Amino acid sequence: MNIQLTVKELLTPLQIVISVVEKKQKLPILSHVLIQLKDNLLTLTTTDMEIEIRASQIIKNQEEISFTIYAKDLIDIIKKLSEDIIIEFIIESSKIYIKVNKNSFELNTSNHQDFPSLPKIKNSDIIKIKRHVLKDLIENTSFSMGSQDIRTYLNGLYLEIDKNSIVVVATDGHRLSIGKVKQTHNLSNKKSVILPRKAVFELTKLLNKNGYKEIDIHLSDNYFYLISNNTTIISRLIDGNFPNYLQVLPTNFNNIIIINRLAFLNSLQQASIFVEERTKGVKLVFKNSKLHIFSHSERGQAKTQINIKNFDKEIEIAFNINYLISILEKLHTNEINMIVPDGKSQSCLLSSMNDDIYQYVVMPMRI
Amino acid sequence: MNIQLTVKELLTPLQIVISVVEKKQKLPILSHVLIQLKDNLLTLTTTDMEIEIRASQIIKNQEEISFTIYAKDLIDIIKKLSEDIIIEFIIESSKIYIKVNKNSFELNTSNHQDFPSLPKIKNSDIIKIKRHVLKDLIENTSFSMGSQDIRTYLNGLYLEIDKNSIVVVATDGHRLSIGKVKQTHNLSNKKSVILPRKAVFELTKLLNKNGYKEIDIHLSDNYFYLISNNTTIISRLIDGNFPNYLQVLPTNFNNIIIINRLAFLNSLQQASIFVEERTKGVKLVFKNSKLHIFSHSERGQAKTQINIKNFDKEIEIAFNINYLISILEKLHTNEINMIVPDGKSQSCLLSSMNDDIYQYVVMPMRI
Repeated sequence: MNIQLTVKELLTPLQIVISVVEKKQKLPILSHVLIQLKDNLLTLTTTDMEIEIRASQIIKNQEEISFTIYAKDLIDIIKKLSEDIIIEFIIESSKIYIKVNKNSFELNTSNHQDFPSLPKIKNSDIIKIKRHVLKDLIENTSFSMGSQDIRTYLNGLYLEIDKNSIVVVATDGHRLSIGKVKQTHNLSNKKSVILPRKAVFELTKLLNKNGYKEIDIHLSDNYFYLISNNTTIISRLIDGNFPNYLQVLPTNFNNIIIINRLAFLNSLQQASIFVEERTKGVKLVFKNSKLHIFSHSERGQAKTQINIKNFDKEIEIAFNINYLISILEKLHTNEINMIVPDGKSQSCLLSSMNDDIYQYVVMPMRI
Repeated sequence: MNIQLTVKELLTPLQIVISVVEKKQKLPILSHVLIQLKDNLLTLTTTDMEIEIRASQIIKNQEEISFTIYAKDLIDIIKKLSEDIIIEFIIESSKIYIKVNKNSFELNTSNHQDFPSLPKIKNSDIIKIKRHVLKDLIENTSFSMGSQDIRTYLNGLYLEIDKNSIVVVATDGHRLSIGKVKQTHNLSNKKSVILPRKAVFELTKLLNKNGYKEIDIHLSDNYFYLISNNTTIISRLIDGNFPNYLQVLPTNFNNIIIINRLAFLNSLQQASIFVEERTKGVKLVFKNSKLHIFSHSERGQAKTQINIKNFDKEIEIAFNINYLISILEKLHTNEINMIVPDGKSQSCLLSSMNDDIYQYVVMPMRI
């Protein structure tokens, strides 16, 4: 079997699907890309058996063919060539020969029927959402996801969708980000799922591209499914009970403090030069309408201070400095709200002024 | 003791000397920068005891003071501040207090008299050389230096200077780069030294900055010394006998082949997708006025070919592909000369057409 494709036809979808291919795969075929041509539609597929990405495009070629090839090698062969160069594939049972210009390559192949695919999704609910709304929700919350936590349900993004709203939550157990948007969905019951980290990153990439204004998310019990711009992402969902985020929100609103965001951020960045490698702890002392910030490491210590408005109580509390910095970088108003707990075991809440979409919770630490 | 400096006065020299400070130092004081002010001259010094860098600048401050401070922390404290902000240092015997804006920092210090310095250089020869000439010589040869070789004399750049020429040589034992420029020096005897890797990189950085057209290199038996743009580099030299590079040059000129440089380079880059991780071997076959290039890895193989002029002999020879690629990237003419040995144990020579400055030697390998 022979087939000719141009660099342009092949490179565009290949660049979309390549990121799922990890360097070290348990199964060799997971390093391959599945290339399928049928009814003028070229489709490239990669998978790690948790997530599957397909990128298609219409081309002028009526042939029907399927084969697999090492994805990384294929992209290395074609990535520097000009768009209109023709690549010829000669496909035999265990070898594929590629001819391009005066160069020829011989690569191992696998039986394309062995290429793993995720099951077809049945009985899914369809959620319609504006692309930029989903993009913003993910970008402003996903930084709080866990990573390689043994509590697997923390290593992903929680989505809770009912008739009137969509809520997105991420937490690593020490901090928690919530985004909540009101919008109407055609749903009979509340739907909640946990999307794995890798799918979150692939989804973010897809949402960052220009494309449709609105997208359809399909959710079954075990799978997430999305089509946008000729690209399809299918991901297994994480099985497990996500923590009840409502229980983590502070209930005591005695200490609502208004702080200048950039002054706070700058002071923390200066303090972060001298935090202990292990704890990353920073101490905040609210006193006499001032916020004093203290940090120390084996090499030295830092003290900074900023003015705060209308707050005369004295409170001393400590946090992981990186958690505070990453939240302040997401907040967007000149002044922000910080709800500081009276008791040490309670959580602290940060939010932009008059923002009813995003809330950020951080647990204090002992230092 | 107190002293006030602006961010600008401190940051410019600090950015020059910071690169010598390595993260993991055997002696804590080597993580420090020595700051000295005397006769309106601010001088910052860092060292790893093999190389010492000093950067000075004239400032309006008549005080006399010397102290040491963690270099990395100091740059972190001041790097984001605007140029005209004043930094106040309060220096006590074991602590330094820094005040800037409303922030204050406390850092450990060491006795500045414990700061190690390389010995004063006596009886040195002075070599005058144009800045761009030395820069070009180093940039076109130093990529062939050894790295962490137990033969320490390979981990540096060899300079050989006599009355009429300067020769620069780098080799890791498998390949060798030579640059030779004719120019007159006021030297009674031939001088040859080996400059360590780290000094070569610092020197390159310094030479890349705009500055004097001509610089003075001081060479003693054990030290290299250079002043340019208020910056001084002093480096210990590597002790050892550098290989006799003249013996490595081919003596048999039967097979002089002219090859199009970019066609050769492109073919090698395509072939490099399929080289064995361990050997990086590529096979070249010269035959019927063509150069055939073969490579293979566990995943597949590549064959490419390019036309060559006026060469009908059949020769088969193998090389580390990365050595060939890095040399072809340094050559600059459309067509290049490749002198291919008849016997396998002899070296191969590459050079740009009609270039009498640079020569590149590669040893063939068995694959």
